[in-house]
Amino acid sequence: MQSQIVTFLIKCPDQKGLVAKFTSFFYEEGFNIVSCQQYVNAIADRYYMRIRLDAEDANISKKDLENKFLVLANELNCTWSVHYEKEKQNVAIMVSHTSHCLYDLLERHKEGKIDCNISLIISNHNKLKPIADMFGVPYYHLPITKETKKEQEGQVKDLLTKHNVDLIVMARYMQILSEDFINTYPQKIINIHHSFLPAFQGANPYQRAYERGVKLIGATAHYATVDLDEGPIIEQDVERITHESTPKTLKGIGADIERLVLARAVKSHLQHQIIVSDNRAIVFPESGE
Amino acid sequence: MQSQIVTFLIKCPDQKGLVAKFTSFFYEEGFNIVSCQQYVNAIADRYYMRIRLDAEDANISKKDLENKFLVLANELNCTWSVHYEKEKQNVAIMVSHTSHCLYDLLERHKEGKIDCNISLIISNHNKLKPIADMFGVPYYHLPITKETKKEQEGQVKDLLTKHNVDLIVMARYMQILSEDFINTYPQKIINIHHSFLPAFQGANPYQRAYERGVKLIGATAHYATVDLDEGPIIEQDVERITHESTPKTLKGIGADIERLVLARAVKSHLQHQIIVSDNRAIVFPESGE
Amino acid sequence: MQSQIVTFLIKCPDQKGLVAKFTSFFYEEGFNIVSCQQYVNAIADRYYMRIRLDAEDANISKKDLENKFLVLANELNCTWSVHYEKEKQNVAIMVSHTSHCLYDLLERHKEGKIDCNISLIISNHNKLKPIADMFGVPYYHLPITKETKKEQEGQVKDLLTKHNVDLIVMARYMQILSEDFINTYPQKIINIHHSFLPAFQGANPYQRAYERGVKLIGATAHYATVDLDEGPIIEQDVERITHESTPKTLKGIGADIERLVLARAVKSHLQHQIIVSDNRAIVFPESGE
Amino acid sequence: MQSQIVTFLIKCPDQKGLVAKFTSFFYEEGFNIVSCQQYVNAIADRYYMRIRLDAEDANISKKDLENKFLVLANELNCTWSVHYEKEKQNVAIMVSHTSHCLYDLLERHKEGKIDCNISLIISNHNKLKPIADMFGVPYYHLPITKETKKEQEGQVKDLLTKHNVDLIVMARYMQILSEDFINTYPQKIINIHHSFLPAFQGANPYQRAYERGVKLIGATAHYATVDLDEGPIIEQDVERITHESTPKTLKGIGADIERLVLARAVKSHLQHQIIVSDNRAIVFPESGE
Repeated sequence: MQSQIVTFLIKCPDQKGLVAKFTSFFYEEGFNIVSCQQYVNAIADRYYMRIRLDAEDANISKKDLENKFLVLANELNCTWSVHYEKEKQNVAIMVSHTSHCLYDLLERHKEGKIDCNISLIISNHNKLKPIADMFGVPYYHLPITKETKKEQEGQVKDLLTKHNVDLIVMARYMQILSEDFINTYPQKIINIHHSFLPAFQGANPYQRAYERGVKLIGATAHYATVDLDEGPIIEQDVERITHESTPKTLKGIGADIERLVLARAVKSHLQHQIIVSDNRAIVFPESGE
Repeated sequence: MQSQIVTFLIKCPDQKGLVAKFTSFFYEEGFNIVSCQQYVNAIADRYYMRIRLDAEDANISKKDLENKFLVLANELNCTWSVHYEKEKQNVAIMVSHTSHCLYDLLERHKEGKIDCNISLIISNHNKLKPIADMFGVPYYHLPITKETKKEQEGQVKDLLTKHNVDLIVMARYMQILSEDFINTYPQKIINIHHSFLPAFQGANPYQRAYERGVKLIGATAHYATVDLDEGPIIEQDVERITHESTPKTLKGIGADIERLVLARAVKSHLQHQIIVSDNRAIVFPESGE
Repeated sequence: MQSQIVTFLIKCPDQKGLVAKFTSFFYEEGFNIVSCQQYVNAIADRYYMRIRLDAEDANISKKDLENKFLVLANELNCTWSVHYEKEKQNVAIMVSHTSHCLYDLLERHKEGKIDCNISLIISNHNKLKPIADMFGVPYYHLPITKETKKEQEGQVKDLLTKHNVDLIVMARYMQILSEDFINTYPQKIINIHHSFLPAFQGANPYQRAYERGVKLIGATAHYATVDLDEGPIIEQDVERITHESTPKTLKGIGADIERLVLARAVKSHLQHQIIVSDNRAIVFPESGE
Repeated sequence: MQSQIVTFLIKCPDQKGLVAKFTSFFYEEGFNIVSCQQYVNAIADRYYMRIRLDAEDANISKKDLENKFLVLANELNCTWSVHYEKEKQNVAIMVSHTSHCLYDLLERHKEGKIDCNISLIISNHNKLKPIADMFGVPYYHLPITKETKKEQEGQVKDLLTKHNVDLIVMARYMQILSEDFINTYPQKIINIHHSFLPAFQGANPYQRAYERGVKLIGATAHYATVDLDEGPIIEQDVERITHESTPKTLKGIGADIERLVLARAVKSHLQHQIIVSDNRAIVFPESGE
């Protein structure tokens, strides 16, 4: 296998000798272990590993590697995935009216801070097309109404398939995706929304946060699941505010948190730092090299 | 009036000339303005002032000061209160089983970091009596059952009256106070509880925060109101956690946030930094001198 | 005076009756006080006010307003400035190789989140011109060598004069400005740099922060003064890091803090929230309306 | 070996097959791996492991375990240590005048939040003896002058030896320890001090932080080394402050950060989460169980 980084994400029931078995397997195939991050959930008796391998001295094809690992994985009852760093992932960004998250992702991409192809932008409005044009990314305007929702989602799916998309980022896309759509892309849709302590259900959350006089506001990035806003949490952050804040200034502060939280979540996903287990996202720290 | 600091907390409908009128009033009575903090809520058209005065050069009795100010206040349609620094406030702490907030408050008090009398500790259990003894504070054990709730609250009220209590701190008192009790002490009961984004209603919140894989946990201090945990928020804070946290370690981290947030809230109240307006607590920053 | 917001920034020796005098002055000229923020420094015996006025009902010309206020100001020994919201400020951004702060400012400006004209970008390199082009801002490439430093700074000054620039933002401009240049623009140059606890002098600070195993890294925005990096601090922030961070990942995290801290500092300056006193920047919170 | 948790801390040059070798070793001796945390420093080519083992099914004596592991360790060129959870560590706290860190540690210990014996308190003053008495911990008053420094440190050493002390916590002990003293207890002395961005050398740092108008203040806990305040950093934190803060209020905020940062550092040390390498403290997160 030519020199490159290979990442395995593994989860399985906890059992004696797991680390030894996995690391011996890769060791014997000639891989150098660049980093090996683990997490044992003693409550659920489950084991998780993110292992990054340098394939330079490994004399094995992709196919053989995967077939051989499959034998061990079955024996240990593992769920697993493997990722080759050189295979760039394709990302679709979905937006509506709000531009801060879109700008942020496009700019980070342009600066080389998130490693992927931004293949396309899809929106139910035409408003943000000029930004797509600035950054030279194809922009698809697919309007949606109650009546055309199913049809529009079909068009979105066609585009995602056509562009071979690996990750869908809902960068303030203000539409509720259908159950069918979400189930088509499990753990492949990242959503961002504002967060409060306490939470405010319903419309105008910044207005209600203001009325309640909260002292912190925040944002949460999570995988989209059928239970709206209840998917596994990838990243969260907050900022301190004061009584001088108004619904309008809160929105501005919130926007800054949203863009940062979303960017971190997207980066963690693209770097294969995340294993989802039940409703928890295990996010391994960026391993330094 | 002998040399001391006097604090006025004022709220009224916003109108032209307010600052000039208030500050001129105090200026003419011979007070030196130590600090003057204001907040104009342009949305609700309301005005708030916290003004701290040095009474050294003022030649007016308390009674006259209050009577004279009342005239101006009525004219401007103000709600207001006045506080004399030398009159130490009496504080009651209510606890159940958990000791971290109790320790924290007693120790800060002993170190001179919160300026008040800690007059008594009331608990529905006997467990924390040794801590009260360590710090030499009277401890009243008033057990409670469903049947005796009303009677126990009566005993509590008697104690509060007897000790002339100005502030009741629920430092992890795990009983729901009756509507009647809460209404007897408006904006005089501070409660602390854990907080999450998103919020988790019901039992075992740390277990549920763990199951959801949240990345931040926090605490909120607020005035107790009849709507449980819905009173005006005084202070909040959060800490970052990871998937390695368990319900048990989350509790430990949560305890550290609770004690700090509660201590800050109690200090802000005792220093008369707070004006409550509708369901918002306007908390002016500690003015430096 | 036509309807608009006028902001006065005032500092003077503390003395009795100040608030009353200032607010009465504006009240009598027919201004409505939108917000009035004060700070009394009891240690230095100085008084600071930021007062925002609605000029709608004021029947006075700019010139008369300033002349009349000058009489009061002289009497009270004030240093002061006045700012008319409708007069948009002109901003120059200076950069070298690094793009994250530049992108951030251009994008916020485009989104309407910072209210000013971004009149020009000046760089000692040509590298970031494509970004300027994307956002349609004039870009001046003025290379610099030891020998041409004085001449180059002269060219910069000419451009700043020609564009009538009010604020110079050094968005990672990696040149040390001459004493003469800095003295030409007192409190009109904002700089951003990384910050550590403890601080690391000299080259490669991220390398050295890594070697020391620091747990937090941060950034500081300040006004440029002749003592390099010693000017009044406008804004600071930090992020938590771990031993897994490398000099490279630290730089990435640092970049995110820098852009946010710089953006907040620029916004505070443009909204006239800052009064500099000795080496301290008094930054009043954004007053909500 | 009777049922208990055993923790190994290991560092060695990075090399192929390390994880497999270590985990196989423990697996074959019958240990169950409770958690296995690793860190590969690709820059320095070094490997670090914290592995926690359940000894319940292991049929090997302590001595045999250590002898056997020594063979493997020598082969791989490891530095290592082993810790048995049931052997409680003895802690000495050194203080001068300031009580907040002392209170905090005593109280956490009493609440069962830090697992150790607090064997004694040593001070160069008598002031804090009443606190020691409250918590029933022996207090040794060993005054110090320039002339008696050497002698006093000798007395301190005798006490530490007599009490078989494993960890010395300098909880605001305001004396500079001699090089000889520090070298006697490598990585066994934890110190806490305030931290600023930028740093302020010399006396009265809070005064100087105030004069500079810093927006954040913090604290750093580190191992004491001969280069004062330059030892490996274990934990740091900061709080946001404003221009309203005075040197006095800064001290109060600083005290709250110090106690929390010191408590976290002591806990990490006692739980054997730390491996020191050059001047870096690798602090593994508390592993959840």
